[in-house]
Amino acid sequence: MKKLEDYVISVPDVPKKGIVWRDITGILGDADAFALSIDLLCAALDGVEFASVAALESRGFIFGAPVAARLGKKFIPIRKPGKLPRATISRQYTLEYGSGTIEMHRDAVAPGERVVIIDDLLATGGTAAAACSMIEELGGIVAKLLFAIELPDLAGRNLLGGRDVESLTFFSGD
Amino acid sequence: MKKLEDYVISVPDVPKKGIVWRDITGILGDADAFALSIDLLCAALDGVEFASVAALESRGFIFGAPVAARLGKKFIPIRKPGKLPRATISRQYTLEYGSGTIEMHRDAVAPGERVVIIDDLLATGGTAAAACSMIEELGGIVAKLLFAIELPDLAGRNLLGGRDVESLTFFSGD
Repeated sequence: MKKLEDYVISVPDVPKKGIVWRDITGILGDADAFALSIDLLCAALDGVEFASVAALESRGFIFGAPVAARLGKKFIPIRKPGKLPRATISRQYTLEYGSGTIEMHRDAVAPGERVVIIDDLLATGGTAAAACSMIEELGGIVAKLLFAIELPDLAGRNLLGGRDVESLTFFSGD
Repeated sequence: MKKLEDYVISVPDVPKKGIVWRDITGILGDADAFALSIDLLCAALDGVEFASVAALESRGFIFGAPVAARLGKKFIPIRKPGKLPRATISRQYTLEYGSGTIEMHRDAVAPGERVVIIDDLLATGGTAAAACSMIEELGGIVAKLLFAIELPDLAGRNLLGGRDVESLTFFSGD
């Protein structure tokens, strides 16, 4: 039986020479593999108390929204600048191939609310750390961070402090 | 009992004066309303034969991915340019406040494959029509188009030919 990592398509030299893009569309393009990925993410939240799933635009939405819907939780989109129509907070971050800014609505998290962050990929951890920082500034508590793929060579966990971090698959040697 | 449209937050004069932004984060921010939206989208596909859900970056992912996961279908992300790592086809389109390009992987749809397109909003229909065009060029069949919100004043259905189109909620007077 194939495992989830068998569905990840490794695309060499994208986005630049010497880098291997770990392409999740191999998971998405197989109905059983996509269902398995959501099953595994939900299983990783067994026993975790939380009210909402926050996910990072755009690929994080693909994994985070099904988990929120299945487990009956709120869904918080964390977006690129200018995409949310009401009052936001924002954070700048650096990532593997550049830098950027993410935003969320100020009323998306209530004080004391426990939030699970879901994204497709844990690389350097810059975006995830920025998401934690915003959620905590609003008074929320990051109950867990969950990733479909982790690149442990990039040591993203180092930016995430002592928070609870779990990934479904790992790819090394990039 | 509140209906789905009661959770949509109408934000006046965004993105410009005289326009009302219909903000789906009011749905997402209520666990029951988000679950209801996915229930209603799945119910709208009852009896529809299809293999995959294609959704449009980024808000379409929030509704499309949970439907694909729940119904055990493939998920096809239709993305902005440069976001997919392998061979793509693309289409230019015009939309309510500008124009743009969308892409999908060439191997995302097999000849004869029946695809449901899901997006958050049907406005002028430009993006949805571009998505249909790409899927059909690859030999796929658009089994149905589903939207969380439709703005009938913008007559988006006119661009979608005789295809099967359904929306969960309608907002007029924009």
